[in-house]
Amino acid sequence: MILETAKLNVIPGREAEFESSFQLASNIISSMRGYISHQLQRCLENQSQYILLVNWETLEDHTVGFRGSPEYQEWRKLLHHFYAPSPTVEHYELAHQNRV
Amino acid sequence: MILETAKLNVIPGREAEFESSFQLASNIISSMRGYISHQLQRCLENQSQYILLVNWETLEDHTVGFRGSPEYQEWRKLLHHFYAPSPTVEHYELAHQNRV
Repeated sequence: MILETAKLNVIPGREAEFESSFQLASNIISSMRGYISHQLQRCLENQSQYILLVNWETLEDHTVGFRGSPEYQEWRKLLHHFYAPSPTVEHYELAHQNRV
Repeated sequence: MILETAKLNVIPGREAEFESSFQLASNIISSMRGYISHQLQRCLENQSQYILLVNWETLEDHTVGFRGSPEYQEWRKLLHHFYAPSPTVEHYELAHQNRV
């Protein structure tokens, strides 16, 4: 399993609109092959900043499958005009976990 | 529930030692009041970079309770000499979640 992290900076004042578009966009990402789960978290220290965490089965499910799909164009159309600057995306794999 | 994120840059070459110290340190954080769960994830694009994700019941459980505790001094002793530069810590709250 791979964790995608995307640091999202939304244009100040457009947060509510972004969150509402994100609800729609969620249906897109959730239907993709290799998708496991996601969460959108809003920063307490900077209310225009979010982090999107997505679990994928493999790296390629995100970088090739999702990014190369027609659905990704819909996703971009719904979300990317809210961002300035562009998101920073990284991928991680689990080194240690503890869940109660 | 609050998500703490800490971007950790480990001195290159010391990753294995860091991960092994982190196993010990995990017992410390897991025993703190307000702690819910944590995971340490290693970056695929930069193998010396990690992200630590910790779920806390409240912001103060981390910023006051944990950071003000004697246990935090032990945590620092085990981990902080592996970092350069110092970690970047932020806090988030859930805006949207979808789990299968």
